[in-house]
Amino acid sequence: MQFINKPLIIFLFSSILVLAHYVVSGQHANYEEKVVLVIHGGAGTISKDNMSDDLEIEYRKTLSDALNAGYEILKSGGSSLEAVRTSIRLLEDSPLFNAGKGAVLTNKGFAELDASIMQGADLRAGAVAGVRKIKNPIDAAIEVMQASPHVMLSGNGAENFAKSRNLVLVKPNYFVTKTRIEQLRKVQEKDKTSGSLHPSPLSYDKKYGTVGAVALDVNGDLTAGTSTGGMTNKKFGRIGDSPIIGAGTYANNSTCGISCTGHGEYFMRFVVAYDVAAKMEYEGKSLQAAASEVVWEKLEKAGGKGGLIGLDAKGNVTMPFNTEGMYRGYITESGSIYTFIFKDE
Amino acid sequence: MQFINKPLIIFLFSSILVLAHYVVSGQHANYEEKVVLVIHGGAGTISKDNMSDDLEIEYRKTLSDALNAGYEILKSGGSSLEAVRTSIRLLEDSPLFNAGKGAVLTNKGFAELDASIMQGADLRAGAVAGVRKIKNPIDAAIEVMQASPHVMLSGNGAENFAKSRNLVLVKPNYFVTKTRIEQLRKVQEKDKTSGSLHPSPLSYDKKYGTVGAVALDVNGDLTAGTSTGGMTNKKFGRIGDSPIIGAGTYANNSTCGISCTGHGEYFMRFVVAYDVAAKMEYEGKSLQAAASEVVWEKLEKAGGKGGLIGLDAKGNVTMPFNTEGMYRGYITESGSIYTFIFKDE
Repeated sequence: MQFINKPLIIFLFSSILVLAHYVVSGQHANYEEKVVLVIHGGAGTISKDNMSDDLEIEYRKTLSDALNAGYEILKSGGSSLEAVRTSIRLLEDSPLFNAGKGAVLTNKGFAELDASIMQGADLRAGAVAGVRKIKNPIDAAIEVMQASPHVMLSGNGAENFAKSRNLVLVKPNYFVTKTRIEQLRKVQEKDKTSGSLHPSPLSYDKKYGTVGAVALDVNGDLTAGTSTGGMTNKKFGRIGDSPIIGAGTYANNSTCGISCTGHGEYFMRFVVAYDVAAKMEYEGKSLQAAASEVVWEKLEKAGGKGGLIGLDAKGNVTMPFNTEGMYRGYITESGSIYTFIFKDE
Repeated sequence: MQFINKPLIIFLFSSILVLAHYVVSGQHANYEEKVVLVIHGGAGTISKDNMSDDLEIEYRKTLSDALNAGYEILKSGGSSLEAVRTSIRLLEDSPLFNAGKGAVLTNKGFAELDASIMQGADLRAGAVAGVRKIKNPIDAAIEVMQASPHVMLSGNGAENFAKSRNLVLVKPNYFVTKTRIEQLRKVQEKDKTSGSLHPSPLSYDKKYGTVGAVALDVNGDLTAGTSTGGMTNKKFGRIGDSPIIGAGTYANNSTCGISCTGHGEYFMRFVVAYDVAAKMEYEGKSLQAAASEVVWEKLEKAGGKGGLIGLDAKGNVTMPFNTEGMYRGYITESGSIYTFIFKDE
């Protein structure tokens, strides 16, 4: 061993560091094949140490199912809108993620859901905020876009609109799971101890389980969508970035489609989803460079934690995040599926 | 007359066209003095034919009062935040504008108010949406920014927060004026005739009376704020651009402060307020060029009607709009006030 020369060791070590950089930053240097659908299930303190093998398998299976379901639409010539709807519905229906069934609970024990959608072809958009009875909030966001002159409807009003459009309504307790009741109880206990009116959303419950999808269809049209239950123990009708066009969701065929997840307040202040597109349009940056700069040079420096998924009209994909993990995955034109959870993969 | 030569006529005619372009587009080619506060009281179908001399005087007086009140703060070394708060409070308290007292009414006869604020120094922001009992929604937006970890609170929750912070609450009928009841009645009659679930907001009530202000203080800090009652006869908890950071309001010392008014759905889809800042940051455009491009090349082409006010850290001001009029004005460092209503002034 003593005959191995020092330069070689340095070279090997440096190579590992460079490689690690690409993996850790959630950047993938090259994709050989066009990606047609990318999804996320939230960014946060998700580490291998805190997850059983069984649960990991369950997460990967659900991500794959959502990718496959959206892919079926795209393969048969369906629109990126329908692919995004299908993938997000599946993630909303899964209790694993903080959207739809199994969403986190407000301080009153309700799930209060937000969702948004945007079409890259015509920049049309729709969103709902603070709804408690709509089974699939992504459907309501799409309905707002397609059947109303508005972009954003909220609360009871949004529910009345959904009812008038014959969307599926459920009792508020449909969304509530044992896991989330337990989580709320723990958070509220800590809350009492801290005595703060507004406990910092970063002090616990650091998993941000928002879901999102961006798809590219045969016509070259991009669509992006996002759906969430927001923050555990949230109060005062807090609205985060997920239903905000420009902050949590954005799509424009000439630049990219983006869906974000993370500490919503930072994503709102930094107009994150649109900022990636603006850097592409105005600075001529690639999707990957633009997204990486927004996450690492703007968000990270300000202390904002989270990540995003992005897809451009050529099928380039990006999934940067500055948290320990982000549930994420994509499917290529030929149907190859890749899923990731932790930062070191 | 027959001796006047043709080239001279063409030259004179061209000069008038060029001059008219600057006036009609709401652009002012040069300001000799630094502007420290700019406000608007909404853009829309505001024409001289539809306004009595008395009403015009009243509007100009209220704009001047709001400018003077904010200027007093700035002149005594106060912050741009307090200047914006003071100007907007005054406009909210005036029944002339669609914000606070005298806001337009929803289809149920309530005023449902939105407001937002953003500080250019640290990119902190706050907003409230759909509140019915907070006397000055701009105060609530500032309180969200200063006393909560959130950016946006909505509905009853936002009202409970305001109460917990000892803001002034009023009975919902405080906001209701005779003029707005009459306006709602007319709109609802037309609504019945058209039979549409969502009458186009452009088909009547084309006055968008949102108010906003952008100020620059002695420290070089910009603050922007916006407050509105939204759209007459609105339903389903519709949220427009005014409480959305990036859409209706944005501020960053390194680029500009912006407050928008107009057909909110377009301002949301085009992320108008932040787009002006992005063009300055990424394309190196001046405030005036960036704002003009967003209004004339993006909004106008898409059919979006409205306008915005903008101020940069050097005291350059811009007030482009593509409607018939916009209540607007600014005050310079030395206290000279300029107010405008129609496009041809």
